[in-house]
Amino acid sequence: MTATIIDGKGFAAGLRERIAGHVAGLKSQHGITPGLAVVIVGEDPASQVYVASKARLTAEVGMHSVKHELPRETSQAALLQLIDELNRDDAIHGILVQMPVPDQIDPNAVINAISPEKDVDCFTPANVGKLAIGLPGPVSCTPLGCLMLLRDQLGELSGKEAVIIGRSNLVGKPLAQLLLRDNCTVTMAHSRTADLASVVKRADIVVAAAGRPNMVKGDWLKPGATVIDVGINRVPAPERGEGKTRLVGDVEFDSAADVAGAITPVPGGVGPMTIACLLANTITTASLLNGLVPPKDLTP
Amino acid sequence: MTATIIDGKGFAAGLRERIAGHVAGLKSQHGITPGLAVVIVGEDPASQVYVASKARLTAEVGMHSVKHELPRETSQAALLQLIDELNRDDAIHGILVQMPVPDQIDPNAVINAISPEKDVDCFTPANVGKLAIGLPGPVSCTPLGCLMLLRDQLGELSGKEAVIIGRSNLVGKPLAQLLLRDNCTVTMAHSRTADLASVVKRADIVVAAAGRPNMVKGDWLKPGATVIDVGINRVPAPERGEGKTRLVGDVEFDSAADVAGAITPVPGGVGPMTIACLLANTITTASLLNGLVPPKDLTP
Ligand SMILES: NC(=O)c1ccc[n+]([C@@H]2O[C@H](COP(=O)([O-])OP(=O)(O)OC[C@H]3O[C@@H](n4cnc5c(N)ncnc54)[C@H](OP(=O)(O)O)[C@@H]3O)[C@@H](O)[C@H]2O)c1
Ligand SMILES: NC(=O)c1ccc[n+]([C@@H]2O[C@H](COP(=O)([O-])OP(=O)(O)OC[C@H]3O[C@@H](n4cnc5c(N)ncnc54)[C@H](OP(=O)(O)O)[C@@H]3O)[C@@H](O)[C@H]2O)c1
Repeated sequence: MTATIIDGKGFAAGLRERIAGHVAGLKSQHGITPGLAVVIVGEDPASQVYVASKARLTAEVGMHSVKHELPRETSQAALLQLIDELNRDDAIHGILVQMPVPDQIDPNAVINAISPEKDVDCFTPANVGKLAIGLPGPVSCTPLGCLMLLRDQLGELSGKEAVIIGRSNLVGKPLAQLLLRDNCTVTMAHSRTADLASVVKRADIVVAAAGRPNMVKGDWLKPGATVIDVGINRVPAPERGEGKTRLVGDVEFDSAADVAGAITPVPGGVGPMTIACLLANTITTASLLNGLVPPKDLTP
Repeated sequence: MTATIIDGKGFAAGLRERIAGHVAGLKSQHGITPGLAVVIVGEDPASQVYVASKARLTAEVGMHSVKHELPRETSQAALLQLIDELNRDDAIHGILVQMPVPDQIDPNAVINAISPEKDVDCFTPANVGKLAIGLPGPVSCTPLGCLMLLRDQLGELSGKEAVIIGRSNLVGKPLAQLLLRDNCTVTMAHSRTADLASVVKRADIVVAAAGRPNMVKGDWLKPGATVIDVGINRVPAPERGEGKTRLVGDVEFDSAADVAGAITPVPGGVGPMTIACLLANTITTASLLNGLVPPKDLTP
């Protein structure tokens, strides 16, 4: 193995410390306590774990943290009414509704109900458009985390060939906008890409966000490439005992680490960045809602 | 010369005929006459020519056409008030403010004042976001025109390598979204791209939108590639007489036509498609404003 392992967990911890500093500054200089409301409908255990850790980290950086847990049978009207109340609540600067929502609720109706000013996930069309145009606003969390790791690892990204595998609205598409803004030559690849291995071969930067365990092999990579593995896939791990599982990325780590210049591990790479960037976005929206310029180190 | 010349002028004429059919249908079946308002501030001669031809073609397809010509010294407040009136006017389904506007007016304030429902240029963040997400709405005119020509020429675009030169909000970025939606593997190149010729070499589809006369040479192209030349550049043409000029694209036509499979000329290629797609968008917004599904052949 020759690649540098990119320590996303460590970087995220440092980022949260910087965020705590910004929270303290907003409080002492402007009397603003950034507030994040997390809404969860139903009792999906994975979502509950995720929401609990969001709430804990939000409080840890000194923000006002609110958690709304609604029963699985909640009607769409009731959820929209709660969102409307949060939209008007001056103590709340970010609203996150944990997806997926139960079947009786239309996720698009939920997204459209969130005020773009408080849309810390960057799901609303207005914020997706601002990101594409380059106007200030919240930025999709996982892509922002990828960008921060890449800048930290490489410094200047200008002129580099970046290949993004996956074109979801959550990861691939917004990341393409961010890397383009940093002057990469950006290729968006996906399941219909004709010869993915040869497309990946030309990349200085590879971001894998396909949700396909161990898909990208070491011999697909250009030697020295920087690899960001967004994928989180649970696979059987009989070596750990019967019925056990483990998490792997979209990149075959061992073979890739022999060729890449640097690579994120799974877990401990992009994952911890996502929540930290959610907190960063809450500082951004709290700043913009109060007519302040958001901190430069938390925005693209 | 071996390439097929893509007849954008002819295609645009056919498209306008289809649009006239949809206008007739909206009138007879739904009592709706699609209405387009064009606003121009100042007396820039090029803009005046462009606006006059928009108004003429709008009327020609049977739409309600309104033209507002405001003096150069118009205040921003006065322009925003006119836009507000047009936003509320039920006879108007599309509003276009001819850019550039004079210095005393902030173009972003103008764009944000236009109701996204009537934003036939697809300039507002909400519509840019809808385009990226894939929700129904108006689509940037020039990119929509490029997409229509490509589909007409190639049929299925899925799996093709597309390289777009230029990343403006007007052309390059929205076209990338459209080609991605049609399952191309899309590369966005620009002035910081390291080795543009070799990036172009891998493309089955090349779209040049850089505003650089004759920049793309025949030997940059993969044999058989389809070339869409968006560039419109006025260059000196002493062979036509002293002080004379002519229009050229971003692609060196003669050398490119020896290698490409198909190519758009300048003029007569993409140019005529842009206005036709503005009319198409007005049908789309008129349909959506009235709760109707927009015609499939006018949308991506
Ligand atoms: N680290 C984090 O915090 C974080 C956050 C979000 C997501 N994730 C993980 O990242 C992965 C992607 O998430 P997502 O929400 O973007 O997933 P998604 O919505 O399922 O999108 C997957 C994308 O990958 C493409 N793809 C699928 N199979 C492919 C193949 N064989 N070759 C090339 N492309 C392929 C798909 O192409 P088509 O469009 O053609 O179908 C699609 O664009 C998942 O593993 C998810 O768990 C991690
Ligand atoms: N046919 C039509 O109806 C129609 C409609 C609109 C525009 N156009 C024409 O299309 C052209 C582009 O228009 P636009 O509004 O998109 O222009 P623009 O806003 O000036 O954008 C030009 C883009 O090209 C890139 N570029 C400039 N020089 C380059 C070079 N040497 N190599 C690679 N990329 C380069 C720029 O890169 P950076 O971002 O790095 O600066 C920028 O992204 C113009 O000629 C315009 O007249 C035609």
